[in-house]
Amino acid sequence: MVGPEIERLMQLLSRLPGLGPRSARRVALHLVEKRETLLLPLAKALSAVGDSVKTCSVCGNFDSVDPCSICADPRRDQTILCVVEGVGSLWAMERASVFSGRYHVLGGLLSALDGIGPDDLGLGRLRARLDGSIREVVVATPATVEGQTTAHYIADFLADCGITVSGLAHGVPVGGELDYLDDGTIGAALRARRSF
Amino acid sequence: MVGPEIERLMQLLSRLPGLGPRSARRVALHLVEKRETLLLPLAKALSAVGDSVKTCSVCGNFDSVDPCSICADPRRDQTILCVVEGVGSLWAMERASVFSGRYHVLGGLLSALDGIGPDDLGLGRLRARLDGSIREVVVATPATVEGQTTAHYIADFLADCGITVSGLAHGVPVGGELDYLDDGTIGAALRARRSF
Repeated sequence: MVGPEIERLMQLLSRLPGLGPRSARRVALHLVEKRETLLLPLAKALSAVGDSVKTCSVCGNFDSVDPCSICADPRRDQTILCVVEGVGSLWAMERASVFSGRYHVLGGLLSALDGIGPDDLGLGRLRARLDGSIREVVVATPATVEGQTTAHYIADFLADCGITVSGLAHGVPVGGELDYLDDGTIGAALRARRSF
Repeated sequence: MVGPEIERLMQLLSRLPGLGPRSARRVALHLVEKRETLLLPLAKALSAVGDSVKTCSVCGNFDSVDPCSICADPRRDQTILCVVEGVGSLWAMERASVFSGRYHVLGGLLSALDGIGPDDLGLGRLRARLDGSIREVVVATPATVEGQTTAHYIADFLADCGITVSGLAHGVPVGGELDYLDDGTIGAALRARRSF
């Protein structure tokens, strides 16, 4: 009823995260209505990303240059490496503007359920980066069971390298109410309490 | 930090209905991760829609042919016309598979707030379609204040054409609980009650 082109567009849109068939239909209609101002610029932007963006061969970040602009930036601290699950975590760290070192993107987490073992994470590639200049590896995997399993595995894996392997602190999120926090977080925050 | 191409993509995605800056970022990341299977096909699908889909010069529907496949279909009832706000309403009517006539898309509703007057709706174009063959116009604008104002305006506007102008019935939505219905709907349903 809507023609094969719009049908195909709706079908692809419904595969985007957070969009179901209904919202995909709404987005498709909006795009057709704004053909000149939104649909064509979006098509162009997608092609531009498809043509130019590649995976950094050093750290696994996405950028239009390889090595990526973070790896190539001489002002970044060359002695510290932050290990993250994916590029989404890397972006989150960069938005927070608190880390000045470089990254290492795992591309996944250890998961017995999904059949992802140590070999799938390419930890050899991480180890190969640990030449003499790197003093510390911060493992910033998520605070989930899989994230923490992965963090401990990496800590063990790098134990004989003679460098510091650290992890992000657990605790009360800034702005967080105790009322809404789970017991595990409150326990972790209490155990890691510090004197003023 | 993410490069100009991804930045531009995020900015355009955040202009889609239902997507804010956060979900646009999530969608952009997903697209970059699925470059071959999702990003490039989506770019192609958007270009295809941009190249082929046009507005039907008869009814205002979107289709790759003009007149659209509904207007051109000889099996559709040529004596009845359904007036809708936009193509979204037309799609909803078609999904319901209850209407066999043809459509007329207004492209908006009367709105003092948005400064949309009768001249902006192109009602002359609607009147021009009412040659001898059309016996009834069903005004299926939404059951909002603006939708109903528009419906009454159209009914007055076509009063001297000598054809039936009708509107969709108000009442309890099928599957609807009275508990969750507003008073206006319950009142309308009671006034329009029918004997079994």
